[in-house]
Amino acid sequence: MERLQARYEIETPLSLERAAEVIAGEQSCGTFMRLPGETDVLRDRAGARIESLVETGQSDHPSLPCRLSGDVYRRGEVVLSWPLDNFGPSLTNTLATVAGNLFELAEVSAIRLLDIVFPQSFANAYPGPAFGISGTRRLAGVVDRPMIGTIIKPSVGYSPEETAQIVNRLVDGGIDFIKDDELQANGPHCPLFARIDAVMDVINRYADRTGRKPMVAFNITGEVDEMRRAADHVSAVGGTCVMVSLHSVGLAGLGALRRHANLPIHAHRNGWGLFSRSPDIGITYPAWQKFWRLAGADHLHVNGIANKFTETDASVIASAQSVVSPLFAQGPGYEALPVFSSGQTAVQMEPTFHAVGSGDFLFCAGGGIMGHPDGIEGGVMSLRQAADAAMQGIPLDRYAEDHRALAAALNQFASKRI
Amino acid sequence: MERLQARYEIETPLSLERAAEVIAGEQSCGTFMRLPGETDVLRDRAGARIESLVETGQSDHPSLPCRLSGDVYRRGEVVLSWPLDNFGPSLTNTLATVAGNLFELAEVSAIRLLDIVFPQSFANAYPGPAFGISGTRRLAGVVDRPMIGTIIKPSVGYSPEETAQIVNRLVDGGIDFIKDDELQANGPHCPLFARIDAVMDVINRYADRTGRKPMVAFNITGEVDEMRRAADHVSAVGGTCVMVSLHSVGLAGLGALRRHANLPIHAHRNGWGLFSRSPDIGITYPAWQKFWRLAGADHLHVNGIANKFTETDASVIASAQSVVSPLFAQGPGYEALPVFSSGQTAVQMEPTFHAVGSGDFLFCAGGGIMGHPDGIEGGVMSLRQAADAAMQGIPLDRYAEDHRALAAALNQFASKRI
Repeated sequence: MERLQARYEIETPLSLERAAEVIAGEQSCGTFMRLPGETDVLRDRAGARIESLVETGQSDHPSLPCRLSGDVYRRGEVVLSWPLDNFGPSLTNTLATVAGNLFELAEVSAIRLLDIVFPQSFANAYPGPAFGISGTRRLAGVVDRPMIGTIIKPSVGYSPEETAQIVNRLVDGGIDFIKDDELQANGPHCPLFARIDAVMDVINRYADRTGRKPMVAFNITGEVDEMRRAADHVSAVGGTCVMVSLHSVGLAGLGALRRHANLPIHAHRNGWGLFSRSPDIGITYPAWQKFWRLAGADHLHVNGIANKFTETDASVIASAQSVVSPLFAQGPGYEALPVFSSGQTAVQMEPTFHAVGSGDFLFCAGGGIMGHPDGIEGGVMSLRQAADAAMQGIPLDRYAEDHRALAAALNQFASKRI
Repeated sequence: MERLQARYEIETPLSLERAAEVIAGEQSCGTFMRLPGETDVLRDRAGARIESLVETGQSDHPSLPCRLSGDVYRRGEVVLSWPLDNFGPSLTNTLATVAGNLFELAEVSAIRLLDIVFPQSFANAYPGPAFGISGTRRLAGVVDRPMIGTIIKPSVGYSPEETAQIVNRLVDGGIDFIKDDELQANGPHCPLFARIDAVMDVINRYADRTGRKPMVAFNITGEVDEMRRAADHVSAVGGTCVMVSLHSVGLAGLGALRRHANLPIHAHRNGWGLFSRSPDIGITYPAWQKFWRLAGADHLHVNGIANKFTETDASVIASAQSVVSPLFAQGPGYEALPVFSSGQTAVQMEPTFHAVGSGDFLFCAGGGIMGHPDGIEGGVMSLRQAADAAMQGIPLDRYAEDHRALAAALNQFASKRI
């Protein structure tokens, strides 16, 4: 029978084995006392199992507040497995199992979900990204290089018409992709449908003129019926992408949109810091992103190298590599397009290219484009030139010698150099 | 113009004021550099504002990993406000604003959302609980005392028929409310529709016989369309409640169910520990529960006094009181029914009654009923007797002198005494 595996880092005042037993019991057929119905047959059928257990360290104090105490707090990695019969190939119910009550246990003073291995049945149950990397490239008309994107900034405060004016300047500057900020959805000052109409008017005229249609990710985050209507409207006026804030809509919300919309879904991870900021509680990005890819995310935010936030480059790189790793041993890989953003400029293009190992990514810069001394066109051009340099293996400074936009960017954003 | 307020606890290597400015900028119209479009007019219209700021402590080291560093890390509370025009009365987009990228900022070494004040417009936009406390009492036929509930245990491993047999014993024992465990949803070994049918057959026969229909919360957590179909089926066969895991379905998922189903929604908080376990990152329960009540949760889990997990009693009590506090200054209060569970027995009834300040709560015991020496009937009776004692202001030990079931429970669960 198929089993689902999850790997955790835990810390406990008990033995690692005892803590693992408590987690396995709490998350399957056990409770705080053994009950008459909990027969050996039932435990065999429904119980979670400890697959492996490795101690990695000790401390004399608990990392998080913990009701139970001990002289030593042992840290380690434990792999648990569950029979798929308990919950079936259901993302929502898997989440409640592998990331549910266990975070509250008094038997652990730290617990993080490090990874999860979905059995093959999930491939039949979930469609995954409808467009992914190749579908996005096709719609955006970008064949063989990283896609250059940007976020409308300031994030909020523009009217639909002002937004469309910015979009006009951006597409004239040669941008491939534009997204709403996650703070800009459907507020009274910039209603979504009016913004879609004003922006798509610009995009469609540009496409008629040039034969190339830049992709715009409209932030349609909202209630399920609102999102479905909004996606229909984006399609109706020729749009090619929608965006949602994953933690706001939830797995069921994303699933409902995936089944309805025939557009790539640009998945924003805002709120992610709550899951990752502490080394003692949470879920790693490689584990987290698997849920959202299965549910249908086409593009996944991974922050950026030398970002304005606090995440390390190593963590960003691991995240980016995780979204392009196959989900199952057999069949399609469910790869999503990694999206880099947050304080990005031409300076970060080359290390990003090497982190991904190919040009299959979307590189979003806000200030890194708008703040270029030659304006938007110079900003976009500097990013394309940086990508060209990276793809050809030419050092940035040398390539900048005869590429003016790149040279200006390197000068302007020197403080970003890694 | 209406503004939405949120209160945070933060820690920062900068001045508190500078950190608050960065958060306000990041979560409204700012970015890492001031852009041409960010005019004073636009900032006035769309900018988040610092309403107040109080320093509460200092430390010489950061509580969480933080890219920026300082000699002193200042801790304090800050209240920010946003113009409602930015996002409108939308729960999903409010969440992205008040609990979004800010958790990743390098300018804070700790950040927790302590509270949020929704402006009155949200009362028009969101229906809130359809049944709440009074509607639940009416459906369950319990007028003037705490409702006594239980969880099917073992959580997983029973077939639909075995589940129905347990339910039969529970209702014969006088239980008011039964819920699926959050681990039991729609797995192949115990398919949801078969379980609903088998259990409701027992419930309907009991109701025909006695005129009283105990409430069963079927765990319908799943994709939106699955939940809608399951809720329809529960209604069709005479069921009176559905349950969902909030973090699995998300705000949009719960909203879709609320708009469709004509049943109380029993809201399970599993995964909550991830939001609350660290004192340095997360969202407090009083802030978190407001989102779910607005979205339509009728019953909200608040853990239990002297629970088997690690949460303190003070925290549990604050949570319980928060779900019965009015959400708005005017109009209906959107009160939800607080649900106590986790290692609960007759011993915890009296302190629970005093914590809530009334009998308006649901008291769920698993082992505290099943593990009673006189079996289920004795377990339920002991909880009712404990509730009677609490409501009459009679000390538990004295009441137990001539109430056999209670006396046996006190003896059996003596280790639970507070």
